[in-house]
Amino acid sequence: MQCHKIVQILRQKAVGEKIVVQGWVKTVRRSKSVSFIDINDGSCLTNLQVIAEQNQTTDENHLKDLSTGCSLRVTGTLAASPAKGQDIELQAETLEILGLAPDYPLQKKRHSFEYLREIAHLRPRTNSLGAVARIRSALSFAVHTFFQERGFFHIHTPIISTGDCEGAGETFTVTALDLENIPSSTNLASVWDDDFFGCQANLTVSGQLEAEAYAMALGNVYTFGPTFRAENSNTSRHLAEFWMIEPEMAFCNLQEDIDIAEQFIKYLVDTLLKDCLEDLELFASFIEKDLFKRLKNVSEKTFIRLSYTEAIAELQKSKKSFKFPVAWGMDLQSEHERYLTEVIFGQPVVLTDYPKTIKPFYMRVNEDQKTVAAMDVLFPGIGEIIGGSQREERQDNLVARMNELNMQTSEYEWYIDLRRYGTVPHAGFGLGFERMVQFVTGMKNIRDVIPFPRTPGSASF
Amino acid sequence: MQCHKIVQILRQKAVGEKIVVQGWVKTVRRSKSVSFIDINDGSCLTNLQVIAEQNQTTDENHLKDLSTGCSLRVTGTLAASPAKGQDIELQAETLEILGLAPDYPLQKKRHSFEYLREIAHLRPRTNSLGAVARIRSALSFAVHTFFQERGFFHIHTPIISTGDCEGAGETFTVTALDLENIPSSTNLASVWDDDFFGCQANLTVSGQLEAEAYAMALGNVYTFGPTFRAENSNTSRHLAEFWMIEPEMAFCNLQEDIDIAEQFIKYLVDTLLKDCLEDLELFASFIEKDLFKRLKNVSEKTFIRLSYTEAIAELQKSKKSFKFPVAWGMDLQSEHERYLTEVIFGQPVVLTDYPKTIKPFYMRVNEDQKTVAAMDVLFPGIGEIIGGSQREERQDNLVARMNELNMQTSEYEWYIDLRRYGTVPHAGFGLGFERMVQFVTGMKNIRDVIPFPRTPGSASF
Repeated sequence: MQCHKIVQILRQKAVGEKIVVQGWVKTVRRSKSVSFIDINDGSCLTNLQVIAEQNQTTDENHLKDLSTGCSLRVTGTLAASPAKGQDIELQAETLEILGLAPDYPLQKKRHSFEYLREIAHLRPRTNSLGAVARIRSALSFAVHTFFQERGFFHIHTPIISTGDCEGAGETFTVTALDLENIPSSTNLASVWDDDFFGCQANLTVSGQLEAEAYAMALGNVYTFGPTFRAENSNTSRHLAEFWMIEPEMAFCNLQEDIDIAEQFIKYLVDTLLKDCLEDLELFASFIEKDLFKRLKNVSEKTFIRLSYTEAIAELQKSKKSFKFPVAWGMDLQSEHERYLTEVIFGQPVVLTDYPKTIKPFYMRVNEDQKTVAAMDVLFPGIGEIIGGSQREERQDNLVARMNELNMQTSEYEWYIDLRRYGTVPHAGFGLGFERMVQFVTGMKNIRDVIPFPRTPGSASF
Repeated sequence: MQCHKIVQILRQKAVGEKIVVQGWVKTVRRSKSVSFIDINDGSCLTNLQVIAEQNQTTDENHLKDLSTGCSLRVTGTLAASPAKGQDIELQAETLEILGLAPDYPLQKKRHSFEYLREIAHLRPRTNSLGAVARIRSALSFAVHTFFQERGFFHIHTPIISTGDCEGAGETFTVTALDLENIPSSTNLASVWDDDFFGCQANLTVSGQLEAEAYAMALGNVYTFGPTFRAENSNTSRHLAEFWMIEPEMAFCNLQEDIDIAEQFIKYLVDTLLKDCLEDLELFASFIEKDLFKRLKNVSEKTFIRLSYTEAIAELQKSKKSFKFPVAWGMDLQSEHERYLTEVIFGQPVVLTDYPKTIKPFYMRVNEDQKTVAAMDVLFPGIGEIIGGSQREERQDNLVARMNELNMQTSEYEWYIDLRRYGTVPHAGFGLGFERMVQFVTGMKNIRDVIPFPRTPGSASF
């Protein structure tokens, strides 16, 4: 007799079939002669109700110990259910308790997300965190499917790196030195000589530069890997370790880059609306009332595209009083991005052609010499969800820009080589995976959309 | 006019169609009036031949500069080709040189893999490394497809960790401390207090323990992420950073674990034989003559299963003189694994039930109290490619085993919790992704199957 997953059982509704189910007890309700046991095996949100008569179980001695969190194996026959809210139930024939759960920390009541973070190893057993995990998995697969179906190659760019793509400087150091016996360091360069890699190494902040090398060989590529920031930001929007998706396309300009970003986001949302409806409904019921409206807004509306310069003009025209006064050349703050997406347009907006002074060295300088071919996708309620650009493919311009920023060109010779040998126009973007999971679930704190969050002061489990 | 990828052009063979192609020059051959230009865009191994008459190009001034490595955009009409070895060619109407490539480091001749490692940013432009990258991408997607189609959920286990799953101790430290100004450390514990995570953190060596937590909630899960070893092994088989796939299944015993491992490997090989034939043929021609025979051996033969104890007896029976003499209790060496798979059986072998003294704490102790429910999949020519086990799900046994090994149980309370609350039999395994890429390509050095290898003394690019 085959063991079935509850997701299949509920889909197939094979009344009369004899099956085996294994899972964990969500709730037990007892009457004089029978127990009603809701079990869940994680394959979907919905539980299967098991009806166990006392004299039909093999484990009579333990049935009284059965409680939330216990694990079970039940053999029985599927029957049409007279109960409200379910089509079928399982009439138990044998019931074996695999593991008890005395003093189980997860009770039927709703626990706060703060409490659940303290038991991150148990929280996927709750409805909400289990649903996050299933959605995260579906979203991750949709990322791969989107790119693979379009002929993109998945590239594993390195995690340990000796560069700092964004120039932000807030990187973690990776070392194999025994820090308990590090010599008091008058000459640290020589300390690195003795380290594993023979130089200072750190955790990557982006795979873009390496992805460019592969785009210059294979055409269209993408990365999907962990990235890191040693930024001391204890907020609901920051993680020290998060996952990022970075496509990079040869023979691609900024408009085509935006086209692909828009198709990509819509594909992800549409896939979840098709495949994860039950889990999404949980979030629409308990976390974010307008979730489906928001998802359909992204799925159905063509993103508004306007230049940074036009956006500045729109914001100034609004006469709204912002905490940070609006002026050309400034980096847009969250309040400006939200005003554009939520008040002025009420839908996703793509801003392009930002001042070069507020963007990294690798972005292509426009003809005006003041702006670069950058693009940010801004979402209502979220702000920036995607950042991208056409890359500077002209060797002279790239080197000039690096010199302007006092960068060591000698450390980037390999990157300049990509312009030296058969350079082509190319572009790409980055999507923070956890931000996307937050968007599709409505979860407020980014720590609740990754299994084991790493934040200042916390790397447990 | 749409821009086409060469892989589509060669597949569709739309003679008479007007198209645009963009790519890089592999070779140029000139006659008096025409140039024969082989271009490649990375979408597949095969080049498209472009026939350009001097007076039909827009860039007449540069056509003489055209050389290997240049980037081009060509508009033209597809024609049946009279040349041997190709069905179609492109009659150029306009030809635009996008980027020149003077002194290009990759010439038509074959370069050594050692040389190519020094220019890892350019090597995917070669036939062999380009093919490795395409196969790697297809293999990566096949991993996801296999598990997703079978209802497994993809879990992103943490990269930065405070545990050491294997107890090997050869981990990299992750720190945000300024190592130039670290106080001379009489009391290092207080140094960690000041570090980003408030304790010593390192790079993960395995996501298994965290995956177990998710299997205890969702049933079947898998990880696919980078793992790290600060092991000073300068060999063709070791990387400091490599990717690992680790499924973990609730309600699963050792035999079912082996079943899934075998199905998984066969699925990967079959997918590549179906989707990557052209690239595989390159490796069969130039790298490993018997490649297809080896792949079919894995695909078609049921893996032999025998216990470690039986394997020891087979080896002793063979009377072969090994460098490491065979005795029960020893860890098998490469010579023993190869003798079993290559000489005795001539096919993949799964060994089970190893002595507990040579295996980690989390493996389930068998009734004999001497062996554990472990399994290793051994491949001819490769050795161990998968290692797995049924996990110790009994709380008392787990704690006893940890005590035997002098482990700090207090650091593993969360892991013990998985046995405390609704424990179930469960099992899983790990596949080193690069070992698998080596197996399917025949590439001898593991540094040539990952884009930017990290090894002792080397973290460039």
